[in-house]
Amino acid sequence: MKELQGGLGNVRGYSYSAVECGIRYDGRLDYGLLVADAPCSAAGVFTTNRIVAAPVKLCRARIGNNIRAIAVNATNANACTGDEGLRAAESITRDIAERIGAPEGAVLMASTGIIGRQLPAEKMIASHGALVSGLATGSGSDLARAIMTTDTRPKEIAVEFSTVNGGFRIAGIAKGSGMIAPGMATLLCFIVTDAPVDRTDLECILRESVSTTLNAIIIDNDMSTNDTVLILSPLSDKPLSGDDLVAFGNALLYLLSRIAEMLVSDGEGTTKIVRVNVINAASEDDAKKAARAVAKSMLVKTALFGNDPNWGRIAAAAGYSGADVSEERISISIGGISLLKNGTPDGFKTGRLVEVMKTGKFDILIDLGMGSSTASVLTTDLSIDYVKINAEYST
Amino acid sequence: MKELQGGLGNVRGYSYSAVECGIRYDGRLDYGLLVADAPCSAAGVFTTNRIVAAPVKLCRARIGNNIRAIAVNATNANACTGDEGLRAAESITRDIAERIGAPEGAVLMASTGIIGRQLPAEKMIASHGALVSGLATGSGSDLARAIMTTDTRPKEIAVEFSTVNGGFRIAGIAKGSGMIAPGMATLLCFIVTDAPVDRTDLECILRESVSTTLNAIIIDNDMSTNDTVLILSPLSDKPLSGDDLVAFGNALLYLLSRIAEMLVSDGEGTTKIVRVNVINAASEDDAKKAARAVAKSMLVKTALFGNDPNWGRIAAAAGYSGADVSEERISISIGGISLLKNGTPDGFKTGRLVEVMKTGKFDILIDLGMGSSTASVLTTDLSIDYVKINAEYST
Repeated sequence: MKELQGGLGNVRGYSYSAVECGIRYDGRLDYGLLVADAPCSAAGVFTTNRIVAAPVKLCRARIGNNIRAIAVNATNANACTGDEGLRAAESITRDIAERIGAPEGAVLMASTGIIGRQLPAEKMIASHGALVSGLATGSGSDLARAIMTTDTRPKEIAVEFSTVNGGFRIAGIAKGSGMIAPGMATLLCFIVTDAPVDRTDLECILRESVSTTLNAIIIDNDMSTNDTVLILSPLSDKPLSGDDLVAFGNALLYLLSRIAEMLVSDGEGTTKIVRVNVINAASEDDAKKAARAVAKSMLVKTALFGNDPNWGRIAAAAGYSGADVSEERISISIGGISLLKNGTPDGFKTGRLVEVMKTGKFDILIDLGMGSSTASVLTTDLSIDYVKINAEYST
Repeated sequence: MKELQGGLGNVRGYSYSAVECGIRYDGRLDYGLLVADAPCSAAGVFTTNRIVAAPVKLCRARIGNNIRAIAVNATNANACTGDEGLRAAESITRDIAERIGAPEGAVLMASTGIIGRQLPAEKMIASHGALVSGLATGSGSDLARAIMTTDTRPKEIAVEFSTVNGGFRIAGIAKGSGMIAPGMATLLCFIVTDAPVDRTDLECILRESVSTTLNAIIIDNDMSTNDTVLILSPLSDKPLSGDDLVAFGNALLYLLSRIAEMLVSDGEGTTKIVRVNVINAASEDDAKKAARAVAKSMLVKTALFGNDPNWGRIAAAAGYSGADVSEERISISIGGISLLKNGTPDGFKTGRLVEVMKTGKFDILIDLGMGSSTASVLTTDLSIDYVKINAEYST
């Protein structure tokens, strides 16, 4: 397996397009389309929020169909928009289906942006002519740019892997930035492959890969109403199996890990990228609880921002996480520097620790000493810019 | 019942003292003592963190004893300090007990400050002469100041209530600011009364009152290792009962509500004080989950800071709270302005909403439409100053 230059354009069989539709702001790409040359198997992972956006409802209903296209818009989430919102998503996808000669149920949709505003469906449909005529294999980067909200850069990646039947490719784009927490997919991520994978395999492999990548990152503790990860794979009488399927799974896992890193390092206001590893927990659930509590603690995250070697906040967060934690057994190190050993401070190493923190990329290791389970979560700091960005988002 | 001018000095039978001990910084009151003239019944509510500070362990072991004194220090939490930390707390309280002529087990202790540093016990014991000789009924404000960390002002309050046997008083001091979340007491709060209350009644009434006051405020989502609420009441053959006990309970509840407000309005970097009310939830647990998720959402809190009328973040937080939420039934209003009605936007009221938010004090009402349970949580915004304060705390 190897990582390729460029993104979506590496994969045969798909084309892309994006326009400045003016959904909420003028002068930015805000509406895009992904079209497969032929019907595809699809799989999706969606938000677990009880309040879900209209396009998520539409995707859930259609994900089992043979899929031809995905329409995506930024700047308006089409969430908390009631029946009107759902009708808007339906009429938009119906119009696209007609234009590309596909059944209505073959078009999926995803949205991101502000909650509680109706989508300007007529305006969007009016742009479909340009959107469809602009479709090109090489326009994946435009689509990656069209789905950005507070992201500072588009996120696009492609990999190639080998099978007995030759090489295949997988490519994906994503947007993240805020409202990123585990227990959901992440905001929006679209993956295409030229490898034929059976629908059930596609679903299982996507779910499993997402759980340790996109579902193991924390920027803030909020979960969106719109989180959507979709993957398309060409229909085939001879889908991958055996070792070839494993190779596909490994390549997808690598691709999603890389996307997770891109999302975290471009998190709103991020100046640090920190992996929280919990080891020797009594159970996997405990390991996850402890890792997530530390990863989302506002006091830990502000300390990370300030290069403040205040590791007591890590111990406190592990302590209130709900995991089985024993004060006499917990040990903590940062960037390999041991700070707490079995509940007692392991010397005073402030100077060295500040140097590690200033590198901006390091691990926090929490050894609970209670069992043998582990968990790993990627997190960021909480910066002044995060507050500035989110205090000014909708206005 | 009425609120009195001043604080601890209103209550007969106790004296106070504070010194500049130089525990971590010079030139600030950082060590204080509260002494009762005679043995008292005591009750306490402590952190539910699995990692607890040495003084909390000491309090838990001694809370059933007749209590004469409480020693309190700021700037060092004496948490994650192992056996050495516990021995320090024991030797400090033993020395105080000797000086005031009380049994060793009659002295409690509480600490707040940085985690993972050993307490300078010898230095603290060396200050006991001055601490004990300085004890005075009128020095309660010094004690309130000595327990501050990032608080910008001391918190002190007193109330008076009537019984058939005449009037009694309750007074309290507290420190809060950061690391404040429900599911624990709050940081430190010490209450004295001249009303004789049976130990079991004292315990029950304190627990119940704390649950809807100090345990229903959120500044950040962190829970301290040191949270301690203590109340002292004089021993008596004729403790309050019947209506008199109810009057005591009401007065204590009022006092704790006022302290909760003081803590929130002096939360780190706070510019807003917002009550999140959830009504018509399917269960009390659901109501609490939804209220807390909204109250601690970083996206909601940054929107509050920025006077950003982005109410969709409130809907999203309720949706991921784990409470039973139905998109078709949820309604949201802010400061009495209806924004979402049964899952559909209720008009576009940005201008009016921003005006309400700018007042700095308002309610968020979330009607889940699923049952008849309610919950209420007091929260704050997440400001640039919060990040600044916490990025620089330990260094």
